[in-house]
Amino acid sequence: MKNEINLRIEALRAAMSAAGIDAVIIPQTDPHQSEYLADHWQVRRWLSGFTGSAGSLVVTADKTLLWTDSRYFIQAADQLDGTGIALMKDGLPETPSITAYLCSNLPSGATVGVDGMLLSAAEVERITPEYAKHGIKIDTSFDIIDNIWHDRPPLPKEPIFIHGMEYAGQDAADKLAGILDEARGHGADATFISALDEIAWALNIRSRDVKYNPVVTAYLFVGDRGGVLFTDPDKADRDIVDYLLSQGVMTCNYADIKSFIANLPADMKVLIEPASTSATLAALLGDRVVKGKSPVALAKACRNEAQIRGIREAMVRDGIALTHAMMAVEKALAEGRRITEMDVDALLLKHRSAQPLFFDESFGTIAGYGPHGAIVHYEADEASNAEIRPEGLLLIDSGAQYLDGTTDITRTIACGTPTDAERHDFTLVMKGHIALARMVFPEGTRGTQLDAVARQYLWREGLAYLHGTGHGVGHFLNVHEGPQGIRLNDVPTPLMPGMVTSNEPGLYREGIHGIRCENLMLTVPAMTTEFGRFLRFETITLFPFDLSLFETEIMNPDEIAWVNDYHATVRETLSPGLDAEARAWLAEKTRPLPL
Amino acid sequence: MKNEINLRIEALRAAMSAAGIDAVIIPQTDPHQSEYLADHWQVRRWLSGFTGSAGSLVVTADKTLLWTDSRYFIQAADQLDGTGIALMKDGLPETPSITAYLCSNLPSGATVGVDGMLLSAAEVERITPEYAKHGIKIDTSFDIIDNIWHDRPPLPKEPIFIHGMEYAGQDAADKLAGILDEARGHGADATFISALDEIAWALNIRSRDVKYNPVVTAYLFVGDRGGVLFTDPDKADRDIVDYLLSQGVMTCNYADIKSFIANLPADMKVLIEPASTSATLAALLGDRVVKGKSPVALAKACRNEAQIRGIREAMVRDGIALTHAMMAVEKALAEGRRITEMDVDALLLKHRSAQPLFFDESFGTIAGYGPHGAIVHYEADEASNAEIRPEGLLLIDSGAQYLDGTTDITRTIACGTPTDAERHDFTLVMKGHIALARMVFPEGTRGTQLDAVARQYLWREGLAYLHGTGHGVGHFLNVHEGPQGIRLNDVPTPLMPGMVTSNEPGLYREGIHGIRCENLMLTVPAMTTEFGRFLRFETITLFPFDLSLFETEIMNPDEIAWVNDYHATVRETLSPGLDAEARAWLAEKTRPLPL
Repeated sequence: MKNEINLRIEALRAAMSAAGIDAVIIPQTDPHQSEYLADHWQVRRWLSGFTGSAGSLVVTADKTLLWTDSRYFIQAADQLDGTGIALMKDGLPETPSITAYLCSNLPSGATVGVDGMLLSAAEVERITPEYAKHGIKIDTSFDIIDNIWHDRPPLPKEPIFIHGMEYAGQDAADKLAGILDEARGHGADATFISALDEIAWALNIRSRDVKYNPVVTAYLFVGDRGGVLFTDPDKADRDIVDYLLSQGVMTCNYADIKSFIANLPADMKVLIEPASTSATLAALLGDRVVKGKSPVALAKACRNEAQIRGIREAMVRDGIALTHAMMAVEKALAEGRRITEMDVDALLLKHRSAQPLFFDESFGTIAGYGPHGAIVHYEADEASNAEIRPEGLLLIDSGAQYLDGTTDITRTIACGTPTDAERHDFTLVMKGHIALARMVFPEGTRGTQLDAVARQYLWREGLAYLHGTGHGVGHFLNVHEGPQGIRLNDVPTPLMPGMVTSNEPGLYREGIHGIRCENLMLTVPAMTTEFGRFLRFETITLFPFDLSLFETEIMNPDEIAWVNDYHATVRETLSPGLDAEARAWLAEKTRPLPL
Repeated sequence: MKNEINLRIEALRAAMSAAGIDAVIIPQTDPHQSEYLADHWQVRRWLSGFTGSAGSLVVTADKTLLWTDSRYFIQAADQLDGTGIALMKDGLPETPSITAYLCSNLPSGATVGVDGMLLSAAEVERITPEYAKHGIKIDTSFDIIDNIWHDRPPLPKEPIFIHGMEYAGQDAADKLAGILDEARGHGADATFISALDEIAWALNIRSRDVKYNPVVTAYLFVGDRGGVLFTDPDKADRDIVDYLLSQGVMTCNYADIKSFIANLPADMKVLIEPASTSATLAALLGDRVVKGKSPVALAKACRNEAQIRGIREAMVRDGIALTHAMMAVEKALAEGRRITEMDVDALLLKHRSAQPLFFDESFGTIAGYGPHGAIVHYEADEASNAEIRPEGLLLIDSGAQYLDGTTDITRTIACGTPTDAERHDFTLVMKGHIALARMVFPEGTRGTQLDAVARQYLWREGLAYLHGTGHGVGHFLNVHEGPQGIRLNDVPTPLMPGMVTSNEPGLYREGIHGIRCENLMLTVPAMTTEFGRFLRFETITLFPFDLSLFETEIMNPDEIAWVNDYHATVRETLSPGLDAEARAWLAEKTRPLPL
């Protein structure tokens, strides 16, 4: 495999040399700026062997480098070992950005090649002047992967199905009218949407094109004569075509998008979100482009009543499935039976898939035992699969796609009697989780403003996690979605009623253990005073935290009361759906901590 | 006066009409994008009668509107009353921005006039496309104020003096070399600096051009042959000209800046900070412009050892002056003598000006008694001057310019026995102040990430303040400076060692009272762990908080310990400089709160 990686990169270098390109950037995305990719778009994985969900590859005449973030430092170091590909740890102060690296390592007059379908218009606009300062050009027409990757998987062709009104709560025609209104508010006549989850939401359609993400590979154009969906004709049967027509949407071939865009009337103004539209398609739109926030993202993030009812019900089913799965894990440990990380994964899938409305997992389960828990996006495979023994910590991050909602939960479990150090680490993480969960904040507050609330207790002891504290979660859609986020870097969209956002501080001690405590929270109104309208979070995930891991000595009474209240809610909500044995197990797991 | 305001605005309207201008924006700034202005630049004040330090006036054919922020809502409503000028409360969700307002109230084809010397290049670049979307043009050549304002004060001509190396700690030639290096790092050959405090810092010069701000009205160009300072020739005597030459800086006439810029070599690349360079001068630079962060701001904000020693010593003198002033206030109240807000102001000035190295106040003292405390930037005058009685709260925000540092402190004092409501409000503000003061955070953390820490206890009860929590403070320079800030909106510059930033949460109940608790904090290293380098704040302001206002029942032991530790530091540091009576007074004011 390592040898094959080298052959692939050499083939790329030969193509670069022939085209007069001095460096190539291979971003981990698709023409829709997706995070999770169909196999067809796994170019960076194919070229480098690194399987993480984030990270760009850079190839120059004599160096190959992979930039990835803290979630993947350990995994990338392992997978790149022996390939000669250098790991660039993104986010550390000493690591230059790709732009900074290439600007200081390429001579003036050099050309950087990238496939303009894989780089957003915003990104190209941002980096072009930076490169220009150093006399370096960006060539966005460098797309030679097809010529090198001979057994490249085809584009996905999974059938489209309709996401029913009982789950979506608003029909597509109505959504499209709102989208067109938004576009007009930007002074545009129409809008062009590339983001797959936005298209799925707007049209109430889903598919299985991308593992874990029930999206449809497509583009959507919305103008005053309705919508045009560009997708593979094999994906849409007669019923789907008729359904779309009933909502005012024509279907066209996915491959026709470039000529459609290029032939739009020259005086038509088309709103695009530069962060999710590829540089190539934005360039084809040319002077027609009106840049602005996506006319879909905010409406999609703010759930309506049907969606809120759905996610609450999905959380009950997910909590019941988790109860059964974790009872089984605990029983195996208690009885001294062999149980591995992959067994935990299988148990979760077994119990979740037995629940009504289950469709898929929402991402690959992370069951990381001991040191594996410190690998933030660990996914056990045959080679790594660790046996869980009655000691140490087990981190389990998992989620499901139900037709009525998407779940995402992380629990950290003591497999035996926890040590003081384990309890201390866990409690610092939980204090941050609780502080965030309890926040009340004025309308207009951005997640970034609340992020440090979850980190403060770790920071005070010189501890930190580098990932975000909270991401938006789609509704039977991508488990990671915007536009809101609770992160270190600024996210301009405020937290608004109806948004679902994760609360997941963590702590990762390399070679020892990883801790993460994650619930999903719904933003709801808190109160209105002379100082304005205030919002708060309602925690909607339903499963207990491990009581044996709380160091109550460093918790204040408000924090202990929060845990006890939350556990009472979990117990009262899940118990009616459990048999006597599971009910007793849950009662034990949710007994009050002493105040 | 109200009638005169109308006549001025009518004169402006006549000029607008003659020039074919449909609306004019009058920003509250000068060609250096200053916050505090010489009288020559008080155009908005002259036109509107509103005296606040922030806020733009907009004049259309039939409407006059003033946008200002929450600090000035009450004052502006009062001063605009009867003028027919509408108050637009900036920062409230229902208030449109000036751009949004004009775009929806002017017809397509309209022209908005503004003096391009008073609007930054960044601002013009930001708003031009927004107006263009609505078919509205910006004309930056509209500068007719001279023709209307016949008794306009001249440009300032105060003498320049040298800020000695014992205070500055780094000579100007060395600073200029660093600035040029920064400019080259941006790919530029030179840099052009407009910000007055940056010029004063870079050249170690000061003047009295602007009340409270010891800056020099000037422009500075720095290239590979040294610097060129553009300033009024009356301001620089032979010694100053010689001093500047010794540091590699020539002097030119302030009025020559436009022709100097226009005649620079066409292929020269000149770094400017678009936020502090006027649109007019940026346009004259044309293709020479390289946009980037100011090459001065960060170096200026991060104090060297001499500066840190200086500000610590200035804080001791300031604390001693405050002790004497507040003893006198308390004595007058105890003895039933009449004492007013303006008397408090005078006492502070009297005791501060008796201290060595005192130069000026750093801003107009805010001594706001009772309801006046709720007017965030209140400044008592003969008409408003309230008598302080032995009840209610007195908010005192004041500061001084010493040659070795700038101070800024706010205390809220109970004039009699405080009510439970007063204690509760005060304690919520202090809990936020303490939480921020105690923060430990990783290198790279921005103030915005910490802002909500200071607001959280207020927010939980539906309370809020709309101003920033912390601003940078200059070193014998402007009391408000960047680039860091602890604010609701994102500030990209992180908090770095050597920065001095205020910590000033507050609560303002209109018609009742205002509370603000402000110390200055120096950012210092905290620890280095496997997770990186961590920083913390060291509080450097030295004066007690009013012990009678703490509701200890809602404080946790860590918070009470912080107050007691801080008060012990204040007592130990100030006592050696106090006489026996003052020492005893301070000991009483800093006695420990019961744990």
